[in-house]
Order: sequence, then C-alpha cells, then structure tokens
Amino acid sequence: MNEFVRKIEAADNPWNPAEFEAALRAVGPERYHDLHPFHKLLHGGKLSKGQVAAWALNRYCYQEAIPRKDAAFMSRTHDRALRREWIHRIHDHDGTPPEEEGGIERWLVLTDCLGLDRDYVTGMKGALPATRFAVEAYVRFVVEQPLVVAAASSLTELFAPSIHRERIAGMLANYGFVNDDVMAYFKRRLSQAPRDATFALEFVKTYATTRELQDACVEAVRFKCNVLWAQLDALHHAYVVGLIPPGAYRPEGM
Amino acid sequence: MNEFVRKIEAADNPWNPAEFEAALRAVGPERYHDLHPFHKLLHGGKLSKGQVAAWALNRYCYQEAIPRKDAAFMSRTHDRALRREWIHRIHDHDGTPPEEEGGIERWLVLTDCLGLDRDYVTGMKGALPATRFAVEAYVRFVVEQPLVVAAASSLTELFAPSIHRERIAGMLANYGFVNDDVMAYFKRRLSQAPRDATFALEFVKTYATTRELQDACVEAVRFKCNVLWAQLDALHHAYVVGLIPPGAYRPEGM
Repeated sequence: MNEFVRKIEAADNPWNPAEFEAALRAVGPERYHDLHPFHKLLHGGKLSKGQVAAWALNRYCYQEAIPRKDAAFMSRTHDRALRREWIHRIHDHDGTPPEEEGGIERWLVLTDCLGLDRDYVTGMKGALPATRFAVEAYVRFVVEQPLVVAAASSLTELFAPSIHRERIAGMLANYGFVNDDVMAYFKRRLSQAPRDATFALEFVKTYATTRELQDACVEAVRFKCNVLWAQLDALHHAYVVGLIPPGAYRPEGM
Repeated sequence: MNEFVRKIEAADNPWNPAEFEAALRAVGPERYHDLHPFHKLLHGGKLSKGQVAAWALNRYCYQEAIPRKDAAFMSRTHDRALRREWIHRIHDHDGTPPEEEGGIERWLVLTDCLGLDRDYVTGMKGALPATRFAVEAYVRFVVEQPLVVAAASSLTELFAPSIHRERIAGMLANYGFVNDDVMAYFKRRLSQAPRDATFALEFVKTYATTRELQDACVEAVRFKCNVLWAQLDALHHAYVVGLIPPGAYRPEGM
C-alpha cells in the first residue's frame, strides 16, 4: 500500500475520542523526559551543586520562552473565549501584580539558591546554544503549525505532575542546598499543569476532526518531547560527560 | 564604566577594516567546529561505518537548509546586483539543470555509499532533533537579523577549506568505504567556499558601518559556530557516548 493510499484511508477514518486520547497519552511512556538519564541523576542526588546550577540556568531559557509561546498562540485566534482561558498561562509564568510573582520569579529563587547571579541567568549568555535552539523551535512550532496542532504541543503537561512529585521529593531528600521555598515552582505546577492539560486535551479532541489532524497532534506531542529530551541531552553531554561547549557556563572545578 | 556608557563609546568608535576583519577571523580559532572531538574521531578513522553514516544523515539536514537560508537572504534585499551574486550559492547546492547536479546531490552520493536509503535520508525522520533545531535556528537567524549581520553568519566559510582538506585526506586514508567520488562534495567546496567567503567578507566590511553592527557581525560568526558545534555535540552524545534519543537512527549493533 503506497503512502498516498494510506493517507487517504487515514483521512477517512478519524479515531474516536477515546482512541485519540490514548494515542496522545501513549507518547509519554515512549519518550517523555522522565526517562532521560540526566533526570535520574538529578532526582537521585547524584549531581554536584554546579551540575544542578547548570540545569537550572539552562532550564531558565525554557521557562522564559513559555509566555512568549502562549502569547504567540493567543495572537493566532479570533476566539475571545479561548484567549480569556489561555491568558492565565501567561499570568502563571509572568505573575499578576501586585501580589503574585509568577513562575519565572519562582524559578529565579531556585537559581539564587544555587549561587547564580540573576543578570547572568536572565541574560542567557552562559546557557548551552542547544538549549536555546530547542526552546526557540518550540516557539516557532506554535507560531507556524495549525492552531489545534500548536495546542497539542502543550500536552506534555499530561505527564508533568509525576515528574514534579518525583523531583520535589528527590531534590529535598538529596540536596542540602534545596529547601521548600526553592521547590515552590514545582509545587505550584502540581496544580497548574493538570488544569492546563485538561483544557488543552478537550480542545484538541474537539477540533482535531480528521485523522490527518489527529496524527499531526500526536506528532506534536512527540515533537515537544524531543524539545525537552534534547535539552537534557545537551546538559548531559556538557555537564556529565564533561564536554562543555565554548562560551557556556562552567561550574567551579569543571 | 556602565553598560550604557560602554555602548555609546563603542558606537562612536567603529573598528577600521583591518581590525574588524581580524575580529571576525579570531572567532575561528576560538570555536570553529574543527576543534570538536567528533571531527578528530571522524578524520582520524576512529569511527565505525554506522557512526559515519549517522554523521552524514544528520549533516544532510544542514545541507538541505542552506539553499532555504540563501533564499531567505535574497528575499530581504531590493538590491538586484546583490541577488544576482548571491543566487549562485543556491545553484551550488541545488544544481543547475541539466548537467550540474549540485552539492545536495553530491551529499546523497555520500549517504548512498554509507548504505543509507535516500528516502530515509531526505525524509529526515531519523535525524537527531537537536540537529534540526540547530539548523532551523540558522535559517531563522538569516530571516530575522539585520541583513549585514545575516550575511556575517555565513563567514564560517573563512575557516572551511582547511577542515575540508583535512577531511578529504583523513577519510580517504582511513575508511575503506570512502573513495574519490564520495568525497566530491568536499572537493567542490574547496573552491566554492573561498569565493563565497571573499564576497561576504567584503560585503560585511562595507555595510557594517557602526561599532554596534560590527559587534553584531562578530557575534553572528560565534552564533554560526554554535550552530555547527551543537550538531557535533548531539552526534557525539548519541553515537560516541551512545545515548541515542528515542526515534533517532540506530546503526546496526548500537
């Protein structure tokens, strides 16, 4: 059966909602970054403070990109109700003045505790180029793909709570430089991520009406897993294998 | 001296052409990818055929992006003379019918000889996500940066002939599966790259008229070196360290 015939048949046979949801969820056990060896080291207390700092410094670039990604998403829809729902994601990360500081500020509490200068973190000059490339690929994906496919790329949040629980417990137990305040970002995400994932999952199931769009949505979750995995690959290569690229952050003694 | 004062002073003091050229050329010895351990392994005959295939498969993504990058550059200038000069870069890669096949076709001769299926190579599904992210970051850079800065990002070609000479000699001497025909891509680049680099260098020296633009041009060469370096980091991590990401090409026995 050639590719053309397969595509036509697929277009004629959309999955039912339960099958589609199962296909989306199946991507997690296949390639979500909880499977990456760097996370096992991080959560198991096997990293030095400098290695944890390298992780937090690089992951800042991802945090910093999320509100831009969500703004890009909102810029593409004429549906005011959708924008009114989606905007809370930006507030989650950028905060809501005056009292709520937001997730990026909570991330900076973590980098503070790891001894990193805030200007160095927010300037992103010491981050791995591969981190920036991966993160910007995610923003571009949301700018360029069909809206429902762009929404599907956020569905890695379906898999996030278990990794956050593991991280909070593992890092508190294993690192003397980590305390409850420092883990505030992840604790807050335990409630935020499921809310977002529930909404996005319903949205995707409603608007991905052809098998072709459904396939593209599953591929979007894979793409997003690749974005997350590539960030850990780069960290592992630089700070565990020890081949730090020119110009990138060097923890003391590395 | 604070950052603001430094910036104003820099803007008032552009480098003279010789100083500017020296600053651009100084990026090579600092971070061009001839310094990367993966290239030492590749040219020294230390890789298996499968590892060389992984390199060729991933590097195809870079080759494939170059004419898109050059088309993006041309799309941004109203200067017909500049487009008439620049277009030969697209012909170098895409070919000129009927007789000249171009660099991408020569690259596929290399992947053929390494036992890779052409559809698999050109479909790019087995390439490392990090490769695609880095390559697309380069295309975006050329779309988004000031035109002279975009041109400067091509100046890694100043450093290319020596790596190509080393590669041709090293791969011919060390790998039984490589012959002269297979190395045709690199032999052709020995004359193409200097022509392109000479033109781009003059263009950049002519139009980067402020110190701020000159600094951005030097930074563009660094950015491009990062694009090349990140590709080798990803290859090294996957195929030398051996942590191949989910879904990526697996040579036999790895």
